[in-house]
Amino acid sequence: MRGIEHIGIAVADIDIAEETYAKLLGVHSYKREVVESEGVVTSFFRVGDVKIELLAATKPDSAIAKFIAKRGEGIHHIAFKVKDTDASLNQKNELGFTTINENAKAGADNKEIGFIHPKSTHGVLIEMCSDKKD
Amino acid sequence: MRGIEHIGIAVADIDIAEETYAKLLGVHSYKREVVESEGVVTSFFRVGDVKIELLAATKPDSAIAKFIAKRGEGIHHIAFKVKDTDASLNQKNELGFTTINENAKAGADNKEIGFIHPKSTHGVLIEMCSDKKD
Repeated sequence: MRGIEHIGIAVADIDIAEETYAKLLGVHSYKREVVESEGVVTSFFRVGDVKIELLAATKPDSAIAKFIAKRGEGIHHIAFKVKDTDASLNQKNELGFTTINENAKAGADNKEIGFIHPKSTHGVLIEMCSDKKD
Repeated sequence: MRGIEHIGIAVADIDIAEETYAKLLGVHSYKREVVESEGVVTSFFRVGDVKIELLAATKPDSAIAKFIAKRGEGIHHIAFKVKDTDASLNQKNELGFTTINENAKAGADNKEIGFIHPKSTHGVLIEMCSDKKD
């Protein structure tokens, strides 16, 4: 793991949360992006070298809608920078971690992403992300 | 907010969690520290410019013990670097955030820390931390 790329926060309403976090962080969101396949709209803030990613559901069966229904709004995942998401998924799997994805998939912000299940990381949903290959 | 200082993860057993995170992150913990006043033992890992702080309770009435009893292990807080924790607590309070501490208090890793309540930040416990003044 080369560093933290972003922290994902599940929120109910992207407009309201964007306003709160602009006030809290003292910077404005620099990008909104819908990830249709995941049923989410994301909003990104830069804080030093790390990003804060707000995530709101765009449909009721989205993972974010389910998360909020179960636990309420709050921190959803930590994303770590890796060189190659596919290779990292394999490596973590071999180390005994429970990977959610067998292969990398497209994420927001032009990334290839893959997840490790919270049951193998003391309750933390871990995302690994690398820049999209050309 | 100048950047992210660390991410705090509440764990049940510091030895087991330290082993898991060393394997996950590919680095060893560089420090363990007990914060007697908070009833916690902490273990720190460096990942790029950010730290991961594992927190385990050392007594049953510790905030970490209560967190785990209620929600299970998982991400507990995000800590942001600020210049002066006291000044930031005042400023966030004036902006309408619910600050938990009126004044900065001593934290692990030689920091002065103060918290913002999750109810004013969409479910995220926010720590602000600055280097201890001489």
